[in-house]
Amino acid sequence: MTVLEKFKPIFYPKSVMVVGASKDPNKMGYYCVKSLKDAKFKGKIYPINPYAQKILGFKVYPSIKDLPENVDLAVIVIPAKAVPSTLEECAQKRVKGAVIISGGFKEIGREEGLKLQEETVNIANKYGIKIIGPNTFGMVNLHANLNASFTPIFSKLKKGNVALISQSGGMCHIISYHGMEEGIGFSKIVGVGNRCNVEFADLIEYFGEDPETKVIAIYIEGVDDARRMVEAAKKVVRKKPIVAYKVGREGSGKAVYSHTGSLAGKHEIYKAAFKQAGIIMVDSCIELLDTVKALALQEPPNNGRFAVVSKEAGPAITMIDVCTDGGLTLAKFTDETNEKLKKLLPPFTIRTNPVDVAFASLNIEAYKEAVRLVLADENVDALLFFCLYHPGIKLPVEDFAKAKNKFKKCMVSCVVTPKNMWIQVKRKMEQTGIPVFPSPERAAKTLVNLTFYGKIRKMFS
Amino acid sequence: MTVLEKFKPIFYPKSVMVVGASKDPNKMGYYCVKSLKDAKFKGKIYPINPYAQKILGFKVYPSIKDLPENVDLAVIVIPAKAVPSTLEECAQKRVKGAVIISGGFKEIGREEGLKLQEETVNIANKYGIKIIGPNTFGMVNLHANLNASFTPIFSKLKKGNVALISQSGGMCHIISYHGMEEGIGFSKIVGVGNRCNVEFADLIEYFGEDPETKVIAIYIEGVDDARRMVEAAKKVVRKKPIVAYKVGREGSGKAVYSHTGSLAGKHEIYKAAFKQAGIIMVDSCIELLDTVKALALQEPPNNGRFAVVSKEAGPAITMIDVCTDGGLTLAKFTDETNEKLKKLLPPFTIRTNPVDVAFASLNIEAYKEAVRLVLADENVDALLFFCLYHPGIKLPVEDFAKAKNKFKKCMVSCVVTPKNMWIQVKRKMEQTGIPVFPSPERAAKTLVNLTFYGKIRKMFS
Repeated sequence: MTVLEKFKPIFYPKSVMVVGASKDPNKMGYYCVKSLKDAKFKGKIYPINPYAQKILGFKVYPSIKDLPENVDLAVIVIPAKAVPSTLEECAQKRVKGAVIISGGFKEIGREEGLKLQEETVNIANKYGIKIIGPNTFGMVNLHANLNASFTPIFSKLKKGNVALISQSGGMCHIISYHGMEEGIGFSKIVGVGNRCNVEFADLIEYFGEDPETKVIAIYIEGVDDARRMVEAAKKVVRKKPIVAYKVGREGSGKAVYSHTGSLAGKHEIYKAAFKQAGIIMVDSCIELLDTVKALALQEPPNNGRFAVVSKEAGPAITMIDVCTDGGLTLAKFTDETNEKLKKLLPPFTIRTNPVDVAFASLNIEAYKEAVRLVLADENVDALLFFCLYHPGIKLPVEDFAKAKNKFKKCMVSCVVTPKNMWIQVKRKMEQTGIPVFPSPERAAKTLVNLTFYGKIRKMFS
Repeated sequence: MTVLEKFKPIFYPKSVMVVGASKDPNKMGYYCVKSLKDAKFKGKIYPINPYAQKILGFKVYPSIKDLPENVDLAVIVIPAKAVPSTLEECAQKRVKGAVIISGGFKEIGREEGLKLQEETVNIANKYGIKIIGPNTFGMVNLHANLNASFTPIFSKLKKGNVALISQSGGMCHIISYHGMEEGIGFSKIVGVGNRCNVEFADLIEYFGEDPETKVIAIYIEGVDDARRMVEAAKKVVRKKPIVAYKVGREGSGKAVYSHTGSLAGKHEIYKAAFKQAGIIMVDSCIELLDTVKALALQEPPNNGRFAVVSKEAGPAITMIDVCTDGGLTLAKFTDETNEKLKKLLPPFTIRTNPVDVAFASLNIEAYKEAVRLVLADENVDALLFFCLYHPGIKLPVEDFAKAKNKFKKCMVSCVVTPKNMWIQVKRKMEQTGIPVFPSPERAAKTLVNLTFYGKIRKMFS
């Protein structure tokens, strides 16, 4: 069985039951049914609750054994101690996957929780049930209209090619909520929680093959199978980028453990090992988002010689600081480019790299040509573009995109505007494959990350 | 003459002339007049242009000597070589301050520019004219309805207590545009440009005394008078915080020089010296904004023992990572607090520091009390608060603020929501003095910066 087949019943179920479904909007069991409903899941939805008749319009079944047919996926939101027996009942209905939202397992750090988790794993493995969780917000597959989580808003996420594997439900929410604003499209989002028999490594392998996933994002605290994860990542990065945010330094150990039952352990060592495996390591959830956004839009550069075209010198300097700090090199233009820029732009501009077009940007033809010349230069691998809103300036986005595509160069931009200005301009840039960031540092750091991955991929090509 | 008196004619002029005013919306001279107009400047506005009759409704004068009265401030947007003689003419009209927007001076790195700047300085000093620039976007004083810049949008900035001194006009725009979105109020914004006779040190001294300024923000590339600046800062930080973003590492030297005519030089040495002087050093323009926003809203903590109250464990862990990395200490609650939290919150929550209220936050009374208990704890200097939007949760903002004020504790928060959700909630938090940030890392780093300053100030109290 291929890895895609193995995960099919869980990511593409024909039917879903919610064990612990509720009519009470103060209960998670209510939101789990609402999530499935709001996502317009095409298959059958079976809420299980011994007392209710209908929940959100769905017929409720008093128990699992009362279900009229076998079911692929079970979403479980009941007290921890009832989970093992429930899983036995699920097995009788040929359940192949379970999302166990309930907490009270390994993460509580007591004998009782450890035992419950062990029992759960044993039952799951006996019947071949894949488990997401326990102690998770759930899982979402935008390509199957499946929102198996307690967060109905996830049903409104944009369908796309970014997969997210996260050890924290909170972080899934942060990334998704910001992702919505940034227009990032997701393929699947999985909160792995305490991890019973679906580990980071398993999902990395799966997303490596998943045709709907182009970029893999990871939020990780503690990890039990670092070696397997690293091995899986090494293979996958040859074809798809993996971006990871590792948190949980030694001082935070206790909180990490209490969270999803993993020892954080040698934080810096893990980070170094992940980086060596070719994983792009980031330092914040915003950087994670920025990097996956850029990777979802375009190919990374093969090398680190970058150029800057800016309308202002200050932001260009901050971009150069961040890039040189990240190991990139300010490109040296060919003589031809230098000469052409000198002819094109007036003396009050800066006509070397960084190019500061200043108010020559009011001349749209010169602006276009300056960007084109820089992208055409054989010594330039990538372009950082900076522009501030100004009422007199028109950004020739289509021409920029044409040049970028013609010369197959990576381009990352920062466009800063007063609120609600140039919204269409920024949208158009991203539609044509040029990611836009709100600060020069974020744009530059994103290029550093893209370049890291471009070099990794080149090694394997 | 006090420093306040010295700068009065420039920041609070009774009248302003624009030399190089223009009717053409492709010229900076047009935007300079529009800026003054849009800001509803109360004094007289005199555009100077030999050919136009009226510009934006203002009567135009053909030359400076034709002006009907003496003028306090001159905004100069003419070619560099005409600046010295213009300044002589300004002196005849008793001009006390000049904002020289024109480029073409020291920053071009050629003899001709250096000479022009020297000449300009000599004339200015001879007549006691203070110069902002040359090679600047201008200067804004929200408390005098004065927008002496080429950016009319600055007239719409919120009046407040943050002063910004910036070597880059571009960076002023980034900070102002983002500041508008963040609701940050500015007192004055000065683009120092090439700096003739108004240096960072002068403005630090001025803002140290300026009753309309509570927080001083600085963006700096190269600096010629590092020692004077450090000495000035040392005095000012005893009463007002200074937050600085220093860019321009060695590799970016040429761009820095070409920008506003300063050698970047020993970047890391300067950074260390500034920090030692008690200046809060930040690593990005966004961090600069975050830090001034928080400082404008509340007093910094005197010490670094922080607590976390979160609705999710993952973001709490990232906050702890950032804080411990920044030298802060996770507070150890008193036995009393621990016991009370244990009684208050159900077992599935984390009832130590970090406190993870999880879905107990659906119980508004418990939520309020958890925050109150932590703020009341004598071992806690500051609270990091994290919350994700959830339809079932009401954030008791007023109660949080009441507890924060009662126990005189610093509180920094991250509240993450889907787009356009909880806008009123976030606004109310900031109105009651609790700054809100969109990511846990940004909230935590802001607390690190506030704590740095709190300790500095304690040293001098």
